[in-house]
Amino acid sequence: LTSKLPNVGTTIFTVMSKLATETGAINLSQGFPGFDCSPELVSLVEKYLRAGFNQYAPMTGVPALREALAQKTFAEYNVAYDPESEVTVTSGATEAIFAAVTAVVRPGDEVIVLEPAYDSYVPAIELNGGIPIYVTLTPSGVDSPSVDSPSVASSGRSVGAVDSSDYAIDWQQVSEKITEKTRLILVNTPHNPTGYVWTADDLNQLADLIRDRNIWIVSDEVYEHILFDGRKHHSLMTHPELQERTFIIGSFGKTFHITGWKIGYCLAPKELSVEFRKVHQYLTFSTVTPIQYALADYLQEPAHYRQLPDFYQRKRDLFLAGLQGSRFTLKPAEGSFFQTVSYAAITDEPDYDLAIRLTKEIGVASIPVSVFYNQKNDYKLLRFCFAKDDAVLQQAAERLRQL
Amino acid sequence: LTSKLPNVGTTIFTVMSKLATETGAINLSQGFPGFDCSPELVSLVEKYLRAGFNQYAPMTGVPALREALAQKTFAEYNVAYDPESEVTVTSGATEAIFAAVTAVVRPGDEVIVLEPAYDSYVPAIELNGGIPIYVTLTPSGVDSPSVDSPSVASSGRSVGAVDSSDYAIDWQQVSEKITEKTRLILVNTPHNPTGYVWTADDLNQLADLIRDRNIWIVSDEVYEHILFDGRKHHSLMTHPELQERTFIIGSFGKTFHITGWKIGYCLAPKELSVEFRKVHQYLTFSTVTPIQYALADYLQEPAHYRQLPDFYQRKRDLFLAGLQGSRFTLKPAEGSFFQTVSYAAITDEPDYDLAIRLTKEIGVASIPVSVFYNQKNDYKLLRFCFAKDDAVLQQAAERLRQL
Ligand SMILES: CSCCC(=O)C(=O)O
Ligand SMILES: CSCCC(=O)C(=O)O
Repeated sequence: LTSKLPNVGTTIFTVMSKLATETGAINLSQGFPGFDCSPELVSLVEKYLRAGFNQYAPMTGVPALREALAQKTFAEYNVAYDPESEVTVTSGATEAIFAAVTAVVRPGDEVIVLEPAYDSYVPAIELNGGIPIYVTLTPSGVDSPSVDSPSVASSGRSVGAVDSSDYAIDWQQVSEKITEKTRLILVNTPHNPTGYVWTADDLNQLADLIRDRNIWIVSDEVYEHILFDGRKHHSLMTHPELQERTFIIGSFGKTFHITGWKIGYCLAPKELSVEFRKVHQYLTFSTVTPIQYALADYLQEPAHYRQLPDFYQRKRDLFLAGLQGSRFTLKPAEGSFFQTVSYAAITDEPDYDLAIRLTKEIGVASIPVSVFYNQKNDYKLLRFCFAKDDAVLQQAAERLRQL
Repeated sequence: LTSKLPNVGTTIFTVMSKLATETGAINLSQGFPGFDCSPELVSLVEKYLRAGFNQYAPMTGVPALREALAQKTFAEYNVAYDPESEVTVTSGATEAIFAAVTAVVRPGDEVIVLEPAYDSYVPAIELNGGIPIYVTLTPSGVDSPSVDSPSVASSGRSVGAVDSSDYAIDWQQVSEKITEKTRLILVNTPHNPTGYVWTADDLNQLADLIRDRNIWIVSDEVYEHILFDGRKHHSLMTHPELQERTFIIGSFGKTFHITGWKIGYCLAPKELSVEFRKVHQYLTFSTVTPIQYALADYLQEPAHYRQLPDFYQRKRDLFLAGLQGSRFTLKPAEGSFFQTVSYAAITDEPDYDLAIRLTKEIGVASIPVSVFYNQKNDYKLLRFCFAKDDAVLQQAAERLRQL
């Protein structure tokens, strides 16, 4: 059997999590919480399991959950999606991304990928015969985490002379890459792995570029509730011209600490949702029923997601404070639960080698950022996931300070 | 957005289940149990939910479940699959089918589809640029259900002069359709919607046809534990030449009455599993963690699936007994939880129209068999799902006798 994905090995997330388990290292690699979800949410799932909600959900999702999502979206972003025709529940955000890409991309179509990029984007494009066209975002002005206190670190801008263009979108470059064949642009904000958060200007720039063109957008917004230092999430749905063209992808896993429940969703205008659903119904058909009912209830309380910025900012700041006095340099993440750090001042090793070595030698697993670049850039960066218990973050930072 | 699946509407399963709900009809359309799963299985899920098994499972499935599946497979079929490299847990059999087709089929490849066929096969082929090549299986010798008692009906062969070639595979026709471009054959046994069960001879015929050719097989065996009248499931894995080429697809949903938990699996030789997993990891990445652990425990007791033939044979026979004295004619299903019946003696209406009318007028929802034919054959057949409570089956049959 000749491979359709010859360049794909096992994902780095599997490789590093496995190595962490085998070596007993602290696992700050794969992006999942090191703590449990709320017992209230578990109780809700139990309630529906016991009440016999154990057969197929409707293909598009249970009505109560689609309603709750539409209401939450309106409350948070003031954008109305019709729960009947524009909201679709999926088996995780990964499925939603695959379905949206599949709905749009035909053989020969070009798809703009801003990299570093999450590792499922390019295989989804390639399996549909699409051609990824890369726009490279680069770190610049990485700086020392020489902050006086977590609260200072948390201001983000005060960490020395940080160049605020760090990982900023190079719109000139994007514009140059757009051709007659461009059919889709993949967006991710807050961004994994860099933590970059799109600005209102980014939305306008994108709208200018796609105006009067036959180009669609998949916007991966799974970290929509994890932003720091008072930043605001500029969802692509908030720009009317972009909203019409965009599949917004969301994740309950990232928001409610349930990455293992594999439940996400897609919000898109009716015309787009029709095509999205045609694919979804043959990819997985539907998503776990008792979990859908439980989340419909749990979403009724906005505090369940509104507490996230504070919750994760504390953890980010704790981790950054722990890195003070280390030889790592960094710019505090603007969003997501990842912190990217430069080790250029410590060693010249390829980032992949260093990630493996740190796991084995000091017992801290991370993700080498080069794996997010399809063009094999190595900027000497590691990504650490700080969605972990405080004591774990402190211990990891202590080990990293030894370097 | 131009559709990549222009011929696809909402699946018939969604249409009919929705109509049944709206009209309050007995729903014998979509294939799911009308009763709950075992409370023991629910308790196991609760146990793992509470114990905090709520983050990502490994991409391939939790080791305990892969082990349990390998052991069960060896015990039932005497075939050894390596749990580490040849067993993969998926978000339902639908995902597994899509992933297997995607792993093999490239634009221009031909794929043999025996129809009637489950509705996800052809879209999966087409989204990968493959060309479905149809082999039509036909009903013949449909006969009156004029049996004296359920136990007589249950013998299957004794229901009058039933032509045992009913829906039998026409191997001559299959052979004629194979070309240099044939890359995959889709198999389904026990068969949905006809209930046909492959014979040992069918396996040999298929092996003869693909020998020395570059052809792979996806074998949908989700009803592997639902066979009647003492029949034996001839899994494609039991034929060594076929085993090497086949992705075996299984479903916990159909076996343990948990269609709403969306969990299935793929068994395939290492070389095939490598490619299967490359696709799976970008389709859904992984499957619900607490459910995987619960099933690993639940599989330890073989009675949990070995009781299925008796359990469903009682229901099939009850339904057939209820149809005695009706003007429907049928051949008892050999396997699956579906019974296909002919209404040729009652009316000339297209089957789709009749299915809608029966739902509205007599309150019994079914699936018109023509929807399983991509070439729009209408043999005047309806499919009824008998995975329902006894009282429901009796009431449905009573209503159907009125016709
Ligand atoms: C699906 S495993 C990867 C989880 C994740 O989002 C990440 O680590 O970036
Ligand atoms: C995924 S809904 C269809 C269920 C089923 O297997 C059937 O009704 O044939």
